[in-house]
Amino acid sequence: MIKAGVVGATGYAGAELCRILSGHPQAELTAISSVSFEGKALSEVYPAYFHMCDLVCTSEEKVVEACDVIFAALPHGLSQELAAKCAAKGKVFIDLGADFRLEAEEEYKEWYNGEFIHKELHEQAVYGLPELFRENIRGKKIIANPGCYTTAVPLALAPALAKGYIEKDGIIADCKSGVTGAGRKPTQNSHYPELNESFTAYKVASHRHTPEMEQTLSHVAQTPVKLTFVPHLLPVNRGILATCYAHLKEGVTKDMLQGAYQEAYGKEYFIRLLPEGRVADIRNVRFSNFCDISLHVDPRAGMLVAISAIDNMVKGAAGQAVQNMNLAFGLDETVGLKLFPPAF
Amino acid sequence: MIKAGVVGATGYAGAELCRILSGHPQAELTAISSVSFEGKALSEVYPAYFHMCDLVCTSEEKVVEACDVIFAALPHGLSQELAAKCAAKGKVFIDLGADFRLEAEEEYKEWYNGEFIHKELHEQAVYGLPELFRENIRGKKIIANPGCYTTAVPLALAPALAKGYIEKDGIIADCKSGVTGAGRKPTQNSHYPELNESFTAYKVASHRHTPEMEQTLSHVAQTPVKLTFVPHLLPVNRGILATCYAHLKEGVTKDMLQGAYQEAYGKEYFIRLLPEGRVADIRNVRFSNFCDISLHVDPRAGMLVAISAIDNMVKGAAGQAVQNMNLAFGLDETVGLKLFPPAF
Amino acid sequence: MIKAGVVGATGYAGAELCRILSGHPQAELTAISSVSFEGKALSEVYPAYFHMCDLVCTSEEKVVEACDVIFAALPHGLSQELAAKCAAKGKVFIDLGADFRLEAEEEYKEWYNGEFIHKELHEQAVYGLPELFRENIRGKKIIANPGCYTTAVPLALAPALAKGYIEKDGIIADCKSGVTGAGRKPTQNSHYPELNESFTAYKVASHRHTPEMEQTLSHVAQTPVKLTFVPHLLPVNRGILATCYAHLKEGVTKDMLQGAYQEAYGKEYFIRLLPEGRVADIRNVRFSNFCDISLHVDPRAGMLVAISAIDNMVKGAAGQAVQNMNLAFGLDETVGLKLFPPAF
Amino acid sequence: MIKAGVVGATGYAGAELCRILSGHPQAELTAISSVSFEGKALSEVYPAYFHMCDLVCTSEEKVVEACDVIFAALPHGLSQELAAKCAAKGKVFIDLGADFRLEAEEEYKEWYNGEFIHKELHEQAVYGLPELFRENIRGKKIIANPGCYTTAVPLALAPALAKGYIEKDGIIADCKSGVTGAGRKPTQNSHYPELNESFTAYKVASHRHTPEMEQTLSHVAQTPVKLTFVPHLLPVNRGILATCYAHLKEGVTKDMLQGAYQEAYGKEYFIRLLPEGRVADIRNVRFSNFCDISLHVDPRAGMLVAISAIDNMVKGAAGQAVQNMNLAFGLDETVGLKLFPPAF
Repeated sequence: MIKAGVVGATGYAGAELCRILSGHPQAELTAISSVSFEGKALSEVYPAYFHMCDLVCTSEEKVVEACDVIFAALPHGLSQELAAKCAAKGKVFIDLGADFRLEAEEEYKEWYNGEFIHKELHEQAVYGLPELFRENIRGKKIIANPGCYTTAVPLALAPALAKGYIEKDGIIADCKSGVTGAGRKPTQNSHYPELNESFTAYKVASHRHTPEMEQTLSHVAQTPVKLTFVPHLLPVNRGILATCYAHLKEGVTKDMLQGAYQEAYGKEYFIRLLPEGRVADIRNVRFSNFCDISLHVDPRAGMLVAISAIDNMVKGAAGQAVQNMNLAFGLDETVGLKLFPPAF
Repeated sequence: MIKAGVVGATGYAGAELCRILSGHPQAELTAISSVSFEGKALSEVYPAYFHMCDLVCTSEEKVVEACDVIFAALPHGLSQELAAKCAAKGKVFIDLGADFRLEAEEEYKEWYNGEFIHKELHEQAVYGLPELFRENIRGKKIIANPGCYTTAVPLALAPALAKGYIEKDGIIADCKSGVTGAGRKPTQNSHYPELNESFTAYKVASHRHTPEMEQTLSHVAQTPVKLTFVPHLLPVNRGILATCYAHLKEGVTKDMLQGAYQEAYGKEYFIRLLPEGRVADIRNVRFSNFCDISLHVDPRAGMLVAISAIDNMVKGAAGQAVQNMNLAFGLDETVGLKLFPPAF
Repeated sequence: MIKAGVVGATGYAGAELCRILSGHPQAELTAISSVSFEGKALSEVYPAYFHMCDLVCTSEEKVVEACDVIFAALPHGLSQELAAKCAAKGKVFIDLGADFRLEAEEEYKEWYNGEFIHKELHEQAVYGLPELFRENIRGKKIIANPGCYTTAVPLALAPALAKGYIEKDGIIADCKSGVTGAGRKPTQNSHYPELNESFTAYKVASHRHTPEMEQTLSHVAQTPVKLTFVPHLLPVNRGILATCYAHLKEGVTKDMLQGAYQEAYGKEYFIRLLPEGRVADIRNVRFSNFCDISLHVDPRAGMLVAISAIDNMVKGAAGQAVQNMNLAFGLDETVGLKLFPPAF
Repeated sequence: MIKAGVVGATGYAGAELCRILSGHPQAELTAISSVSFEGKALSEVYPAYFHMCDLVCTSEEKVVEACDVIFAALPHGLSQELAAKCAAKGKVFIDLGADFRLEAEEEYKEWYNGEFIHKELHEQAVYGLPELFRENIRGKKIIANPGCYTTAVPLALAPALAKGYIEKDGIIADCKSGVTGAGRKPTQNSHYPELNESFTAYKVASHRHTPEMEQTLSHVAQTPVKLTFVPHLLPVNRGILATCYAHLKEGVTKDMLQGAYQEAYGKEYFIRLLPEGRVADIRNVRFSNFCDISLHVDPRAGMLVAISAIDNMVKGAAGQAVQNMNLAFGLDETVGLKLFPPAF
């Protein structure tokens, strides 16, 4: 049994990790920590967990000490020192935050206003989007787990881009996210009466996940890609729907596109390419590690519309982190993750 | 492996059964049927099930033929003939409908306008509320699975009633149900724009689950019990909250009540008695087979307020049906049912 | 034109008052104040109000100075001094808080942990539930505006109690409130992902609106009445549904009840007695000053079930406050309040 | 007083018209009709309207006979004959359906599979988007009232297009609509448990509002414009958010854009150009006739992101229809339409 620990267990991503790890047949949730709730049981913070996960929050140090793999579900900026502690003790470190996601320190500075404290750790870190970079991840010890938008958008566009079927300019990612993406902390925006029956965009074309998506897509395209990214906040708990637009190169047909996606994803357990006539819907992936993708073509405008749906807390956070753990420890990638999405 | 079949698989309770049975380690979902969708895969009806349960709907006859246990998730009135077919072949029959729930045929006539076609089957049938009648259920072949209200209300009141701590008159069950309880068929009442931001009662003091609750509570109290039952429709998908009121007998204290519930339910896996200061909430039991119960006393009025919360589709339907299957086949009651409720 | 001012304009009740007063043909919203947002326009706090109410928040003093009537939408405990200032200047004061609602100081102490600072003001204060106490209110200068529960429950029960048709013991008010009732301040409980798809009770049989309802009902019954009050929180923005239970006295029929309510409320503009077969629903009163009431009888248990629905922010707060203003200034009670509830 | 009638009064747009007309000081809702509910009061269909609009549904003929202006809120295809009847009697006809919206019969054939029955009526008909085509509408007798998407998208893009600030190719309208846009008839898609917590696109790049938007934008640009239009269904009752993307021409700055929109819309009562830092949100326009617009620039990709928000039932249907009535009858355009959007 792999001893797994979660630092930042009382945030939404951390809590979801605890839930998923509790059902993993080859890992054991061994220790958890929380700065705000040290000494309290996780089930005191989340009464839904009563009798299912009554583990008491301890300190970060104890988690590192007790576990083989440490998941960090921390606010951005707090993972670098923790990664160093894990590295010093030879532990596997999987970061759900953004500290190790950007390869270029100048981009990290520009968008996060931070710096690379331990440069050698950044060199060891791999980007944990298994469907695109699986071979890099196996057996690694520092894994930067992508977030929700940065999983949904690249998965929607990668095969078309890799095949050169779409233009690299003018790509648009119009994304809609459930509220859990904003975290557990109450704010005016997430206050029920103000979010209910509302819908709006935020950080229009200025969200800091933009360079991370561009980094992934540029690797796929093997040439720099820029995109316009506009996130919106949906009055639902879970889910990301990414509606991605790209100009089709001349002569590219729907069949060619279907073929490319089939080739790229046909054997991926967690990607469901939807049959003709269906559209990806966040409802169908809730509580699962699936990424549903549907392809659409606007022949009048020569436009590809690729739509992906994930559960932002699972494939967009905790589920993918466990998928990365499985890869890091040489397990079957799907162990503990064949989560059945409910119909309602 | 137990071969399990679901008749009426495309309704909400049937679909939930398929989802739960798919995760059961000692049963295999072998055949399903649907009158409306015969020949279609379940995942065509519920796209969430794509790649997880692509079983094709066949006929009732084939389900009976192929399986050891047949679950019926049918509109009331259609189960009696199916039960006879199962009985003729020695199959276990678990009915999620109401046909076998009432012991007195006159009550069935009064409330359901039906009659007992095969009286001997009604004599064999047992009422499948394991926490109250477990010993009757083990090894039985016709099990009437209680519905959502008829699970939530009796579990909230039984220990107090059994101990004689509350009056048998003037009991009130003010219940609030999620919309899935009304089934998959679209109606004006369940049309999104008309249910959203709404809340009302229905079938006030005239709902046909009333005599079933009274039957259960009368068994528990060993004397006839009448109650006033008012169901309400909540704009949420899942969950029943039952707020039950009963006059306390003189001298009964909160401690005595806590003791009675602890004694009755302390060893029940699926009942969580909440600690002082917590109130049962439908949010905390979603997607699980738990029944959360909190006890409150109004000392000014000498009133017990017992509140229970279940997921109407799990403990109130499909989960409890699997719990009954486990009992019928001599398995541990919790096999395949340790479902972890998500925190959000 | 009556010059109207709102102290505490940026809370939910205050903001709703501003919206309603803006449509009043004989009053003018003249000045508003807010401790948290002094110097800011109301439309900066509520962007929905942009171009409709861009009034800038000033101080309490300036509001008192500038206006003929001052509405206070403040946290409990802050109104007494403000009332004194208004009284000193001969202004009409309408309090949406609880400071002047309880007649007995000992009850105020017990439930609010406060005391009556200016006893003479409490003697002048009248309780502003016009449908029950209209004659007391006309022309008065200090009006205690009841809150949402304390409007919905007494209106549901008053005619039956006044006629002596129900028992005074064992009355139960099982109430369900929209989230705006909890105010504008974000909390964990009102954080969207935690309230969405949830439903629970709170302050079970211990909510401090209990003595206020008992006070009103005792006046109506002309004898002390005690009730068990259990509030629940609904995942909707607006509305209170009060499901009230009372034991019918022997011989009382549905017709007698209908007659009593017709007699009491038949001429009330803001009370809609629903026809047989309909049930009060919060959806139908949203954004209006209506109180819908439906009557139901459980003949098996001899129980009256009276259900009322109001918009907690209108008839349960701001609308009723304007109704009281109309009474205080000798206007037709419905002026500015014939608000048409939308169907969806 | 203008005598106003609504044909199709029991659909959502028709019911909203009745509500808005009831508050119009210079019009009187005189007669309404409904095929499905003839002989029933509107308040039987919508209990929210009880005591506010108890008008009984009669026949189309009687509505035409009794009224000066007839609003048609009918399924597409049923308006042409009604328009002819109105024309024959010299009545003003305002069509909320699509029959008179497209100027080119071939497009009507292609997208609606219909034909122009009375060609002369199509020649008389004007397109009722007042902010763009006001002068055409004044005093006219057949007005084609645009729908929700076809209002929100053109208003978001018109000034930039008119000034030649954006490219005419590659325009994208990613729209999100509340559920009322799909009408009153229950369907599986709008069944509460299936829409709640869901989000998806539909009719991707194939919705029949596409040519209508292109027609409007082509008039504004004075050259043919094509766009890619992808509508999505939001789990909220009301509102359209249109997130529109267009490539900026070289040298165009944010200031130039703000200037163009200010020039075009600065005096429009119903368009609110939001200040820098705010984003249009459907919450802020609910129940009002406002169209909120916010402008954003992605300098990295040279892209304009123009976001508009309307209430699909008001500015996107019934409110705009009344605005057109005001224009047709020479009234101030805002009469009866200064509807104050609630904050929650």
